[in-house]
Amino acid sequence: MSRTGRHFLQIPGPSPVPERVLRAMDMPVIDHRGPEFGVLGREVLEGCRAVFQTMGPVVIYPSSGTGAWEATIVNTLSSGDRVLMFETGHFATLWRQMAARWGIEVEFVPGDWRRGVDPEIVEAKLAEDRSRAIKAVMVVHNETSTGVTSRVAEVRRAIDRANHPALLLVDTISSLGSADFRHDEWGVDVTVSGSQKGLMLPPGLGFTAISEKARAASRINNLPRSYWDWEEMLKPNANGYFPYTPATNLLYGLREAIAMLLEEGLPEVFARHQRLAAATRAAVQGWGLEVLCREPSEYSPVLTAVVMPEGHDADAFRRIVLDDFDMSLGAGLSKLAGRIFRIGHLGECNELTLMGALSGVEMGLDAAGVPHQRGGVLAAMTSLRAGRDG
Amino acid sequence: MSRTGRHFLQIPGPSPVPERVLRAMDMPVIDHRGPEFGVLGREVLEGCRAVFQTMGPVVIYPSSGTGAWEATIVNTLSSGDRVLMFETGHFATLWRQMAARWGIEVEFVPGDWRRGVDPEIVEAKLAEDRSRAIKAVMVVHNETSTGVTSRVAEVRRAIDRANHPALLLVDTISSLGSADFRHDEWGVDVTVSGSQKGLMLPPGLGFTAISEKARAASRINNLPRSYWDWEEMLKPNANGYFPYTPATNLLYGLREAIAMLLEEGLPEVFARHQRLAAATRAAVQGWGLEVLCREPSEYSPVLTAVVMPEGHDADAFRRIVLDDFDMSLGAGLSKLAGRIFRIGHLGECNELTLMGALSGVEMGLDAAGVPHQRGGVLAAMTSLRAGRDG
Amino acid sequence: MSRTGRHFLQIPGPSPVPERVLRAMDMPVIDHRGPEFGVLGREVLEGCRAVFQTMGPVVIYPSSGTGAWEATIVNTLSSGDRVLMFETGHFATLWRQMAARWGIEVEFVPGDWRRGVDPEIVEAKLAEDRSRAIKAVMVVHNETSTGVTSRVAEVRRAIDRANHPALLLVDTISSLGSADFRHDEWGVDVTVSGSQKGLMLPPGLGFTAISEKARAASRINNLPRSYWDWEEMLKPNANGYFPYTPATNLLYGLREAIAMLLEEGLPEVFARHQRLAAATRAAVQGWGLEVLCREPSEYSPVLTAVVMPEGHDADAFRRIVLDDFDMSLGAGLSKLAGRIFRIGHLGECNELTLMGALSGVEMGLDAAGVPHQRGGVLAAMTSLRAGRDG
Amino acid sequence: MSRTGRHFLQIPGPSPVPERVLRAMDMPVIDHRGPEFGVLGREVLEGCRAVFQTMGPVVIYPSSGTGAWEATIVNTLSSGDRVLMFETGHFATLWRQMAARWGIEVEFVPGDWRRGVDPEIVEAKLAEDRSRAIKAVMVVHNETSTGVTSRVAEVRRAIDRANHPALLLVDTISSLGSADFRHDEWGVDVTVSGSQKGLMLPPGLGFTAISEKARAASRINNLPRSYWDWEEMLKPNANGYFPYTPATNLLYGLREAIAMLLEEGLPEVFARHQRLAAATRAAVQGWGLEVLCREPSEYSPVLTAVVMPEGHDADAFRRIVLDDFDMSLGAGLSKLAGRIFRIGHLGECNELTLMGALSGVEMGLDAAGVPHQRGGVLAAMTSLRAGRDG
Repeated sequence: MSRTGRHFLQIPGPSPVPERVLRAMDMPVIDHRGPEFGVLGREVLEGCRAVFQTMGPVVIYPSSGTGAWEATIVNTLSSGDRVLMFETGHFATLWRQMAARWGIEVEFVPGDWRRGVDPEIVEAKLAEDRSRAIKAVMVVHNETSTGVTSRVAEVRRAIDRANHPALLLVDTISSLGSADFRHDEWGVDVTVSGSQKGLMLPPGLGFTAISEKARAASRINNLPRSYWDWEEMLKPNANGYFPYTPATNLLYGLREAIAMLLEEGLPEVFARHQRLAAATRAAVQGWGLEVLCREPSEYSPVLTAVVMPEGHDADAFRRIVLDDFDMSLGAGLSKLAGRIFRIGHLGECNELTLMGALSGVEMGLDAAGVPHQRGGVLAAMTSLRAGRDG
Repeated sequence: MSRTGRHFLQIPGPSPVPERVLRAMDMPVIDHRGPEFGVLGREVLEGCRAVFQTMGPVVIYPSSGTGAWEATIVNTLSSGDRVLMFETGHFATLWRQMAARWGIEVEFVPGDWRRGVDPEIVEAKLAEDRSRAIKAVMVVHNETSTGVTSRVAEVRRAIDRANHPALLLVDTISSLGSADFRHDEWGVDVTVSGSQKGLMLPPGLGFTAISEKARAASRINNLPRSYWDWEEMLKPNANGYFPYTPATNLLYGLREAIAMLLEEGLPEVFARHQRLAAATRAAVQGWGLEVLCREPSEYSPVLTAVVMPEGHDADAFRRIVLDDFDMSLGAGLSKLAGRIFRIGHLGECNELTLMGALSGVEMGLDAAGVPHQRGGVLAAMTSLRAGRDG
Repeated sequence: MSRTGRHFLQIPGPSPVPERVLRAMDMPVIDHRGPEFGVLGREVLEGCRAVFQTMGPVVIYPSSGTGAWEATIVNTLSSGDRVLMFETGHFATLWRQMAARWGIEVEFVPGDWRRGVDPEIVEAKLAEDRSRAIKAVMVVHNETSTGVTSRVAEVRRAIDRANHPALLLVDTISSLGSADFRHDEWGVDVTVSGSQKGLMLPPGLGFTAISEKARAASRINNLPRSYWDWEEMLKPNANGYFPYTPATNLLYGLREAIAMLLEEGLPEVFARHQRLAAATRAAVQGWGLEVLCREPSEYSPVLTAVVMPEGHDADAFRRIVLDDFDMSLGAGLSKLAGRIFRIGHLGECNELTLMGALSGVEMGLDAAGVPHQRGGVLAAMTSLRAGRDG
Repeated sequence: MSRTGRHFLQIPGPSPVPERVLRAMDMPVIDHRGPEFGVLGREVLEGCRAVFQTMGPVVIYPSSGTGAWEATIVNTLSSGDRVLMFETGHFATLWRQMAARWGIEVEFVPGDWRRGVDPEIVEAKLAEDRSRAIKAVMVVHNETSTGVTSRVAEVRRAIDRANHPALLLVDTISSLGSADFRHDEWGVDVTVSGSQKGLMLPPGLGFTAISEKARAASRINNLPRSYWDWEEMLKPNANGYFPYTPATNLLYGLREAIAMLLEEGLPEVFARHQRLAAATRAAVQGWGLEVLCREPSEYSPVLTAVVMPEGHDADAFRRIVLDDFDMSLGAGLSKLAGRIFRIGHLGECNELTLMGALSGVEMGLDAAGVPHQRGGVLAAMTSLRAGRDG
């Protein structure tokens, strides 16, 4: 086991933090009520709009993404409200549990954890709901536990076809900044996100982008709240300040990370992720293994979940990869535990880092005695070369 | 105006972050489910016990201190519960407002913002409460807005004398790690804190230390909660993990900050703060100005609030100090706005930094045309020399 | 003894390195033959010209300032050459010793270490030198060991009045970037400098700015050289590269430091140093102590050397200041050992840092039982206030 | 072209600097004459002995490795001395030129840049030298320009067999800390090194380890010197200090880098380099290309130089690799320009980083239209797996 050299952090988040971002955070704290802070605050709040592709407000919390889930619920829903959710994987299930704890009645459309939200079911369910009892459709854009991306724009169109007033609440914790996502254009009402994935920051910031309609809902819903309250945030945000002490150094990092995303260009960032994801899937196919996601139009650009051959433990494999090659891969969660492993290829990832990672998987499969064909790495190189020429 | 050289951040928090802590945070993120993280998690959770002076659990949230206020309320109280609070200043008032938003009925004992909680009133109020309707006594240990420290051990004794079962919930956001505080010995049920003051970290972590009694209360209270739920935290904490992605890099910093506090020794840390605070008060007296805190046994070791002479605006003075001497002082908050300024002398502060700061105040008083006697700086040096010999 | 908080590094160099500069250096090394390096190289070589106030080349060595002394000698002089030097202090004496080791015949004008180079003596010596045997006049601009600044522009005029062809070689190791210095305007032939003083960098870079005349001399002199050879440097420098591996990360820092100097403005930087130096001398006078420098027109803006009262050991005093107040002061060197201490007020120094330092001196004099009057700190504040209004 | 993510710096030095080392350097400068510095100085001087595998002194210069070449010459040789050198490549040629500039008469044994020093020729040349005119045998241990390592222990035995008193002077600039090297056991008189290769530091430090015999020679040789003089260094070094301002922050890094090497264990460090080098050669063979080094016992563990197929320009290939895959490879130098490229696998390099690098070479060969077989990457994985099991 060698521990010299760079650890390969290939989990689907937290993703590696670029040196520029780490260094930006490694600066003295400033007075959160002084003029210099106001400039910082306005910059990051404005910059977030570009990344969320919205003209509306984005609220930044000192919290995990889970906190932003909670913020979304307590600001828009009322006790006893009915919502429509979809069992796309582990995180959709957790969000559902949270909603239940807040007294929300969840209609949870079952799923096999290998496909995204079916827009036709959305439309059907909403069309059935004559009484307009459903207050929100809650969707996880990129299921971090499965590597499946739901087609949010199509979900929006399904809601529109049903002519239903439900809010569209979308979790982009693991997609924002890596997969194309358009808050305004896609008619999303609340976009939930976190700092530690496509935004290339350490964990510690939660986000909610808010439509006019969501904000209006927040004025009449009845869940108790204080820390997460949007109005309390939006007032001082207007001048770049916060109602309580913000996580200043993470905001330094956020400023730098947004600058990096915009320097590369969002379309280029998204294309890079698609290229890396395609190469990863080519490798999986090359090994003769199976990608968990069943629907090509829903392949995640952020991570690829790989199904282990029957009778082989994904966690034993992952342990060998960690011990022998100093690489962290993502575990199967909940009902997928031991049955899959996940390769993250998001954020500050490039071709050669991915190739190092895929080489580690190929050598690890060999070391763990997992039946596979050699040649995944070769296939990935072919994919990358083709992607570049194309 | 000169902007070269070190900015003097003399607000009562966020306090300056030591280089060692900043650099500890400036390291790559690791897998929050991997073995290396478990070691980190156990270390910081254990280290927190030493700093809170407790054998019981300390819960760490990715949040501001305000979040830890909310966590305390939602884990221990029920809608309609009655609590006893004290108007010691701005932050006590904010905590009361938060409690009210959660449907708590607050008996708010009025105060003049120049004294701490009166233990005799605590005893009297609880003695009157024959029906044991009061579920908690909620106290701010160090009022950051006023520089007044309440005598928590005496409050505990007052509760005991009244033989009352109310929980004792204490905010130590600006005192922990700077002023002596003993969760177990003083019989505190929940101790609330934050990262950005005596712990010498950037903002972004909230803490609650929890007594057995508080934990028992959390099992029967009825407020909805998910993000802040103690039980969800304590289960994975047992192995050093967290139920949702923790703020990894702030935890790196926390490990280093705890190490620094324990290297210096908590008694030495507290004595240093007392010495710096005494010198600051000597300076205020030397200038012929008035310390806001009226009760010597309640002088804060963390910050000193100074009353401006009638007819002079504290904020205009602060602006001159910022522009001319690149020093941030704390503003008067709420009803003290413009009437006081606050000098922070907490965390990573030593004698010469304090002397630089006090020199800046003395020169600033002159520059702003505030009537004062020269000689505050001289008096502070005398105080420091005496404190050292004593 | 407290070791928490910022150490006060008040020696006359190495001076404190700004966070911006440290962080700029804390970045990955790049290929020193790649295109990105060429950009960096051209930027710093160009930026140096601004700081040295020259249109000609500045050569940057991975070395201490001592190395740049050697570079100057071996590039311009020949074995047996005669030069004129002045005993202004310890460093002038060291440079003389180095010249002697290279076989240079030094005429060393004696001095009392309390005054700078006397331009009249320069003129007289050169006028006497009918045979033009003197090849160079070698002057230390700011004597770091004494706090005396020689008047280089007047030395130049003296050489001109004598109509003598000697080169003017000037050591600005401790003055460049803190005291006004003009390579071209003052007709200097070689300006020697180092990174760790006014340039606010860690030690590790040496510099020589070179006039046409000096470069011409380098083509005909006869001292053996390789590492220090100007021509070897200047060829690749034209494109931003170096003949051997340069100290890349120090160059990152140099780029940032030059940016900081130019952002503040060189005239403002020099005025700030004058203001801080005046305040320091006011403090010394306030204590009833003596500044070592005897000639007001030669007071150093970089450091102030203070004469200890008879019978008191400056080093014992310095040790107490270090132990009690965590401040480093400069020692007396060589024949001044124990008799003086030196206060650095250069580079990243501002008013409040200086006041912290002077407070430490005043408290230290008291702690060490050195006879003095109180009030130096007060006098310094008066000086700073006056300097600001003036 | 993608510039997001980690640049692959696969030149044979400067090598990537570990985060731990960068962060250790990113700390405030201290007084180079104070007690804290003495501790640092003693630690790094002592630590260097472990790395050079010597009980004798190691001198550390603020300089490049080139400076340490010069230090070796000026401390041990006299003008007109005769030395024996070997044309093993570009750097041996440069060292010879430097010796010539210092008036040393070099007998330069010609070579084809594909083999190391032939111990038999050493023996023969010395045996011929009846008059003992040859004062030193000067050898480059690892030729950075060719990837050939000379067998220093065998050279020593050849000198001994000839019973010749010549000094053995060895350049380990690119081998120390990566390839096994034993100053004492191998009877080396001066070992020259630099910071930016196996020591995993930024450039800026030069080293000479010195035998008793070399030191004795330095007392009687006649080359002028001051900056490089050993005796000047060794006196203050005894207490951990330096005769002129040392490069403090690089010394912080050196302390950390030595700690890392000793934590991993020198034998493990050397074995890791051998494993990575073998995998690289397997890849080259897999591509059907040729390793420049002709003698298997002289393969470098530090870098591998690859011969380009006739009619293909190595620099055009390298440019494509840099543009398309953000990887820096080493150029062919001097007479090898355009004919080879060099892959560095030294210092902070591990298996997956190497695999990323080799993937970049394989894709780059394709992109540049260089005739090759696919499968080098596959062969490297096979080699690494075998090396691990073995």
